[in-house]
Amino acid sequence: MRKLLVIGIGAGNPDHMTVQAISGLNQADVLFIPDKGAKKNELAELRRQICDRFVTNPKSRRVEFDVPVRDLPVEDGPAPSYRSTVDDWHEAIAAIYEGLIRDEIAGDGCGAFLIWGDPSLYDSALRILERVRLRGDVAFELEVIPGITAVQALAASHKMALNRIGDSVLITTGRRLTEEGMPDNAGSAVVLLDGKCAFNTLADKDVVIHWGAYLGTEDEITLSGRIGDIGAKIEKVREEARRRKGWIMDSYLLRKPE
Amino acid sequence: MRKLLVIGIGAGNPDHMTVQAISGLNQADVLFIPDKGAKKNELAELRRQICDRFVTNPKSRRVEFDVPVRDLPVEDGPAPSYRSTVDDWHEAIAAIYEGLIRDEIAGDGCGAFLIWGDPSLYDSALRILERVRLRGDVAFELEVIPGITAVQALAASHKMALNRIGDSVLITTGRRLTEEGMPDNAGSAVVLLDGKCAFNTLADKDVVIHWGAYLGTEDEITLSGRIGDIGAKIEKVREEARRRKGWIMDSYLLRKPE
Repeated sequence: MRKLLVIGIGAGNPDHMTVQAISGLNQADVLFIPDKGAKKNELAELRRQICDRFVTNPKSRRVEFDVPVRDLPVEDGPAPSYRSTVDDWHEAIAAIYEGLIRDEIAGDGCGAFLIWGDPSLYDSALRILERVRLRGDVAFELEVIPGITAVQALAASHKMALNRIGDSVLITTGRRLTEEGMPDNAGSAVVLLDGKCAFNTLADKDVVIHWGAYLGTEDEITLSGRIGDIGAKIEKVREEARRRKGWIMDSYLLRKPE
Repeated sequence: MRKLLVIGIGAGNPDHMTVQAISGLNQADVLFIPDKGAKKNELAELRRQICDRFVTNPKSRRVEFDVPVRDLPVEDGPAPSYRSTVDDWHEAIAAIYEGLIRDEIAGDGCGAFLIWGDPSLYDSALRILERVRLRGDVAFELEVIPGITAVQALAASHKMALNRIGDSVLITTGRRLTEEGMPDNAGSAVVLLDGKCAFNTLADKDVVIHWGAYLGTEDEITLSGRIGDIGAKIEKVREEARRRKGWIMDSYLLRKPE
């Protein structure tokens, strides 16, 4: 049977690669690379560098492919009508994945999808592959290899724990933070997929933010402080960086005042 | 100035080690190993194996040390009176860490603490090192290297995402789950530090559990299903495994019914 690896490749620092991920890369005959032709995209370039550095299997091929584009990050957005759009979109990608698996992997071969961060957090690959399996046209065995997430890279750069002692942590999105505010059931919240600096919508300006962009790369920026003191500055720094580089990936930890 | 590395070494599978963690291990002159003399402890043995396999620096020394023992996992327990106990306990460990840093690392040397999982999640090392810094008797530069957590190993073994689409995830403890039940603000909860099968206290037996013990090791056990169907079985399997091996480390993902 065909084997599929879904490999977490870390949050942007190639040194985040695990021994298991490197081994997985080299077990695969085919590496599936999205963003076909996206030569100017730094993230696509970084992924190529990871392959160049760690792939030693001479039989390894890379297959680039296009994914349909959406306006919003797939995992973030309002619920019901949005869900159906995501549904259509995932179905379209499932058809693409199915074609790749059927046409590019031999019957007893192995293919790998490379996922930024970890396949388990705000990533659609596992859900889409489950759709492919349910379509029933190609059979495959699946293995998931965990990777370092932006959440962990953020905490490492700020040299701090995510949780207060014995306390919970909410991992959430910018949209949900705007709608729901700081959680009642956790002293800390980690926010991902926030293109709009949702932290500045919080009523309590004493909440402390630990923010980071381009984590683990040479362009890393980190800022910390009371939202009331530093919220506006982060928004400004973020926008300047985004314009300068043409893209930004950022995340942050919010901590209620003690 | 002395340099201190706090290195996440993964959730139990040595292949979770990242390139960055391996490099950190070899940058250190001294590796600090807790559980002095705990030869029968499988986790201590696993950590030794990780060092044996990945340390290639001929100047590297290992220093084993004792930590004062407590009854409960440090990060889990009721709040106020418990807090002062944790406070005393952390202060005692801070004194030990301070001695290790002062006596075992040369003035321009580098030492490393090896942390299971990731230093940012339910681990005290960073908090204790902050205490050492505040005591003011030894100065050091700190670097944190992220590692794969049990949370990620759990999701990988179950080949699933932690979050529902666009939804939040609560990371919490067994005690808090017992007190607070399933969160209102997240469709998924990851539970760590649960010695008492807190999932069986949930009123809603339709909640689905994805449980795992000894994740990433050859003894790994995973079970999934409705709490109503499988909760009792997990409790039984867990207890049998704990007796057989003398210890258990487990975690689980709870998902509200769709």
